[in-house]
Amino acid sequence: MTTSSTEDDTVPRLLEEYGRLSQAALVSYTRAREPLRHLYRLVADYPERGGRMLRSSICLATAAAHGCEPRSALAPATAIELLHNAFLIHDDIEDGSQTRRGSPTLHVAHGTPLAINTGDALCLLAMQALSDCRDEIDLSVRESLADDLRRAAVEAVEGQALELGWRHDNAVHLTEADYLHMVLKKTCWYTMIFPIRAGAQIALGEPLAHDTFVAFGFLLGAAFQIQDDLLNLVGDEQRYGKERNGDLLEGKRTLMIIHLLQRLSGKDRDRLVTLLGDGVRDTESVGWILEKMGEHGSIEYARLMAHALAGAASRECERAFGALPDSQARHFLACLPRWVISRS
Amino acid sequence: MTTSSTEDDTVPRLLEEYGRLSQAALVSYTRAREPLRHLYRLVADYPERGGRMLRSSICLATAAAHGCEPRSALAPATAIELLHNAFLIHDDIEDGSQTRRGSPTLHVAHGTPLAINTGDALCLLAMQALSDCRDEIDLSVRESLADDLRRAAVEAVEGQALELGWRHDNAVHLTEADYLHMVLKKTCWYTMIFPIRAGAQIALGEPLAHDTFVAFGFLLGAAFQIQDDLLNLVGDEQRYGKERNGDLLEGKRTLMIIHLLQRLSGKDRDRLVTLLGDGVRDTESVGWILEKMGEHGSIEYARLMAHALAGAASRECERAFGALPDSQARHFLACLPRWVISRS
Repeated sequence: MTTSSTEDDTVPRLLEEYGRLSQAALVSYTRAREPLRHLYRLVADYPERGGRMLRSSICLATAAAHGCEPRSALAPATAIELLHNAFLIHDDIEDGSQTRRGSPTLHVAHGTPLAINTGDALCLLAMQALSDCRDEIDLSVRESLADDLRRAAVEAVEGQALELGWRHDNAVHLTEADYLHMVLKKTCWYTMIFPIRAGAQIALGEPLAHDTFVAFGFLLGAAFQIQDDLLNLVGDEQRYGKERNGDLLEGKRTLMIIHLLQRLSGKDRDRLVTLLGDGVRDTESVGWILEKMGEHGSIEYARLMAHALAGAASRECERAFGALPDSQARHFLACLPRWVISRS
Repeated sequence: MTTSSTEDDTVPRLLEEYGRLSQAALVSYTRAREPLRHLYRLVADYPERGGRMLRSSICLATAAAHGCEPRSALAPATAIELLHNAFLIHDDIEDGSQTRRGSPTLHVAHGTPLAINTGDALCLLAMQALSDCRDEIDLSVRESLADDLRRAAVEAVEGQALELGWRHDNAVHLTEADYLHMVLKKTCWYTMIFPIRAGAQIALGEPLAHDTFVAFGFLLGAAFQIQDDLLNLVGDEQRYGKERNGDLLEGKRTLMIIHLLQRLSGKDRDRLVTLLGDGVRDTESVGWILEKMGEHGSIEYARLMAHALAGAASRECERAFGALPDSQARHFLACLPRWVISRS
């Protein structure tokens, strides 16, 4: 299998190509709806803001790596992006986020009631997108894809409940295992495991066993989420499209926060616990937390963990796809672990 | 076909019997989940508060009227109640409602973030409930039920967008046709059309044509919704379980409000438009609106409309089910139109 290289431009290049293909399918799917102004204009809003189309691209790449035309996997690719946008809208309300992809969040622009309803519509349209492709996809594969999509959605809602519950209870005794369990549910299933399995099932023309590609998707997704949390702390707001330090302001339990809670003691720990409970509202407190994270190596620790997970993902990738013929798409998958932890 | 009678206790009696059966199935379905405190305790909350179980009972009754055991339709009956509870939770947030079935609404008790997430879970579990009955229901019927459930859910979300949009824009030029279009989407599909079609499909063992029972479900559902709006104005809060006049406080476009907007002119109309736009917050304004509705016959008009729709529903019921053998369940369906407009 071709070794992944940091200099290699396969990931950004194919993300561009697959992203354009799936973005067009996504936008045309949301635009084909009846002109119900207070629903379908809002349904199309986040999808039309762009975004990386990572989930759909992974789905097309996996189909292509298995010898299929990328566009043959457009139905599940569209479905997973619709579901992703549904989650973004509801998460933005739940987190009180103000901006998304560089513009006001949907509930800030249109009010919470219409935004909740739009998220509901997007989740249903995701299911609908899989059912609409009756003529192209065999029944047994379609059923398996529908099961997988629902599974991924339920996992995400369960992961979100864990995370919201931690904030609600101001949980302070969390471990790395708690974090990884939450991330497997909240992120990995719908971001990685569903797209990978869906692309393969389309190409193979038959349902997969329940555990196929789950390990690769988990390791890749966990590395991806830790990097996402790191970017929220130290990244560039303009490129990132969300409020810098939004996670801290929300009291989110990232790996860095969990590490810091384990390392601090006495008054410092009390201060952090109080800040997390009340919400970190001022820049002085944000600065103090970042300083403590620096002192205790919390950011470095999270970076190391992301690297370790990405390394394990690379090995799993080799195990999962190493026997496939060499192709750009297979190389894309092989380069993903390194890409998820080096993107800025 | 047996003539429906106001003295007849068939509807309350079978609502009790079918309700008990489906309530048990619903509660056991929500309790069977993994012990994720911040999700499944909340998922089970509204279902365990009771409620009338109207949708599931109609589903069981339709299966029974077609010669099947009522419990053979428990899967779609459970699914539609799960979806109903999902809508209740999100609607309560969107409407700012404070109480539901006599207790604080879910978002008042647990905060909006966890409540949004719980509604998402219930919608997914509704889909799951249909997929879980693989061993009992044939694939073609299962697919048709899943299509119908998604259709009903999308219609409801579209109807909700219409209604929220009217409030959002402070719409004042609405007609009876606008109202009925909204109610067909928001209420009739998931409250009546899905349960009736689902029960019949289970019993017949084959998918139905797309328009079968739609007219009956529409007429019955519209009469039901108008009566619901009337009860909100003039009903007994204790029995109703929601805030009396909650609809007025929310600026909801009921048939009575649409009628009154058409009848008022000059300063009175201006006052009503302003009140609807700002939200009717004080009891004096509520009293003034009720007084004007009395003067202009808006409440009487809505009662007449509900009666006319229920009458038409009775004729449709005869057309749809008149050829079935006489049974308690068929009699229940025949009595429903009168019951929906006479319940208190």
